[in-house]
Amino acid sequence: MTQFLPTGPLPGTRDFFPEEMSVRQLVFAHLYEVVESYGYLRYDAPMLEPFELYASKSSEEIVAQQTYRMTDRGGRDLVMRPEMTPSVARMIAACAGKLQLPARWYSHPNLWRYERKQRGRYREHWQVNVDLFGTESWEAEAEIFEILAEMMFSVGAKTSDFVLRVSDRALVRGALTANGGVPEEKLDALFGALDQFEKLPVEESKKIITALGLDAERVVATITAPEDEFLKLAPTEVALRSNVARVIREGLVTSQPVQLKFDPLIIRGFTYYTSSVFEIFDTDPENRRSIAGGGRYDNLVGLFGKQRIPGIGFGMGDVTLIDFLHTHQIAPAARVGADVQVISPDPAARGPVKQIAHDLRRAGLRVVTPLEPKKLGKQLEKAAREGVRCAVIAGPDELARGAVKLRDLARSEEREVLLSDLAAAVKQAVARSVSTEVKS
Amino acid sequence: MTQFLPTGPLPGTRDFFPEEMSVRQLVFAHLYEVVESYGYLRYDAPMLEPFELYASKSSEEIVAQQTYRMTDRGGRDLVMRPEMTPSVARMIAACAGKLQLPARWYSHPNLWRYERKQRGRYREHWQVNVDLFGTESWEAEAEIFEILAEMMFSVGAKTSDFVLRVSDRALVRGALTANGGVPEEKLDALFGALDQFEKLPVEESKKIITALGLDAERVVATITAPEDEFLKLAPTEVALRSNVARVIREGLVTSQPVQLKFDPLIIRGFTYYTSSVFEIFDTDPENRRSIAGGGRYDNLVGLFGKQRIPGIGFGMGDVTLIDFLHTHQIAPAARVGADVQVISPDPAARGPVKQIAHDLRRAGLRVVTPLEPKKLGKQLEKAAREGVRCAVIAGPDELARGAVKLRDLARSEEREVLLSDLAAAVKQAVARSVSTEVKS
Repeated sequence: MTQFLPTGPLPGTRDFFPEEMSVRQLVFAHLYEVVESYGYLRYDAPMLEPFELYASKSSEEIVAQQTYRMTDRGGRDLVMRPEMTPSVARMIAACAGKLQLPARWYSHPNLWRYERKQRGRYREHWQVNVDLFGTESWEAEAEIFEILAEMMFSVGAKTSDFVLRVSDRALVRGALTANGGVPEEKLDALFGALDQFEKLPVEESKKIITALGLDAERVVATITAPEDEFLKLAPTEVALRSNVARVIREGLVTSQPVQLKFDPLIIRGFTYYTSSVFEIFDTDPENRRSIAGGGRYDNLVGLFGKQRIPGIGFGMGDVTLIDFLHTHQIAPAARVGADVQVISPDPAARGPVKQIAHDLRRAGLRVVTPLEPKKLGKQLEKAAREGVRCAVIAGPDELARGAVKLRDLARSEEREVLLSDLAAAVKQAVARSVSTEVKS
Repeated sequence: MTQFLPTGPLPGTRDFFPEEMSVRQLVFAHLYEVVESYGYLRYDAPMLEPFELYASKSSEEIVAQQTYRMTDRGGRDLVMRPEMTPSVARMIAACAGKLQLPARWYSHPNLWRYERKQRGRYREHWQVNVDLFGTESWEAEAEIFEILAEMMFSVGAKTSDFVLRVSDRALVRGALTANGGVPEEKLDALFGALDQFEKLPVEESKKIITALGLDAERVVATITAPEDEFLKLAPTEVALRSNVARVIREGLVTSQPVQLKFDPLIIRGFTYYTSSVFEIFDTDPENRRSIAGGGRYDNLVGLFGKQRIPGIGFGMGDVTLIDFLHTHQIAPAARVGADVQVISPDPAARGPVKQIAHDLRRAGLRVVTPLEPKKLGKQLEKAAREGVRCAVIAGPDELARGAVKLRDLARSEEREVLLSDLAAAVKQAVARSVSTEVKS
């Protein structure tokens, strides 16, 4: 028996067939449009980076357990990037001398993490990364939060569908020290424990906190204080410096209102975040993974050179976002059929068929022509089955009159059109067919 | 002394700063437009594939010397894809049962090859891959060649700038056997030698051919025969079945004439090609690397399952294409500045500034606002330096009249515009500024 090669993608990775790719493209086109409307410029970096770029700067869990690590033919210790922030910080440092600040940059990398296999988790995902460099001003947080919200609105989310949960590590450290009785040197260990707080029963978390030698009741009372009260628990001078507290006071300017909530339980496991951290969550409690997340990292660029350039940014990945759209039944419909097929019952009409197809392409239409001789009826049936919107039939009689038949494949209606009017007529038929599809 | 992390990308890879990324995006947008106008649908596959996907099916040089190979945490033997054809063949086999044929697919993967470092060679490159499945008809070759040519025309190439060199392995085998006196069993070794023919002095190649036990004079006379004569050297039944010979007879339907040349020295080192092979070359002899290349692979999909689905396709990569555009001085100019900056001399006008920016973004413009308090004059100078096209100045007096000042930053002209007319006025100013840029 012949041994065939496997047709599936690697475990934990995905093939994007045209239908799925079309949805991914439609969704990300909306996101790009928002990001570019704020003046962000696209950049790109190589997929492989040296291991040292992540070691002890990124998330320990990712570096130790989830990297795709390899040694290349030159003996270099490399990683397939698990996230984009170290790469963009490196690039900003590389052009620091000539860079105009603030710099607004975005990218759309594929990222690799060797995650345990479970529903909705993939080892390769695509992420829009948006970063703003060169300012410590709270206006940066305001802009970044507005962009996040507008990205959500752009794909059809409503105010009630998502919450933007924000925190500030400096503020939370201040509150835990001043009100929770936590000594400075135990804060990092406590943050590690709090990262699991929402996933565990409260009693379980209290045990863990007690084991750290802390007063679990005071700690839990502090981190679960209502938003208004929490913001008063840190020392005043810390609260006054907090960018997220300022943005909460000032509010956001967005197309629709945004549920913006201070939440000290937003921890984010990346070592490089210095103060603000934030995540977007579905309001549907069934969907508990964050849709986007980010933070401020004012010291990361400084690891690459003398110039300290503050940064703030976030990533929004395709897996959780498209899950969210499906949950709320607002995912776009795939669009895969060509606009028009040009055919003729007469094999001798190959020249005119090819020329008409060429002219329609130049007019901006997506046009297919038959590659093998088949009966006209079969060609039309096949085109309709593939979702092609209309057919141009170049019969010898019509061609002699400088005309063709234009057939609407969904409605099975046809009429004669002069070649000089053809591009406009096809565009009209396609537009009508797309609007019918959207209505139905 | 502090030890800083390196700011550069890995040897042989590239960072794309916004200026470079903008050029890459502008160029590929043209290519996508052409490919989509022929009804091709975009797909995607994971960056990592099992090693067995390439072993003994792809190019031996690539597999043995140039793969980025790794073992993942699950012990799998993986490769960062050096080319896309095996992945797309795998996907086509996976959906063979429900697939409508012919299927027209394209993708835009990044590919990795550990190449020796030399000018113009990179280890990661971006490639448009275009493939057509499900027909053995010569019309497939015609369509693929037309797409290749239109892609070149779309980025500004002229007829005289490039040659599409095509060959047919079956035809060349036939000619070498019938006219060159080469026995069947020595054809593969001879093809290996001929792949270097153009890079070596003829006498050198003759020695290599003689060492294979062949009549070097006859072989060289055969492969260097003029196009018209060569096409008659293979047995008639082979010549009649040749798709490329048929396309050469019929000609292409393209926007501009194409230099289409039969050339038996187009070998291409991929094991899976079965007959047609082709490459695009710059006519400038200084630039000797091919800009695009591909072929017909009628048996590759069959390695993944029982259904034999013929395929033909090509890849066009960013490195050689953008080199070509620079050589011919037709590379597009980078476009990185925002369209408009909205500012106010009055810090109290933050609300109106943000609202105006928001409205202009909704109108489709790329808009920035200041993040830190700075004098108006400095803001304007900075915006002009960054290539921002115009500024909206929301002074308190103008705002009281429901108006703002609109300033053309290149010309230092300004005028008052009603808020209700602002989006249209900004669009006009941006269009004028872009057209000036193109003229200059």
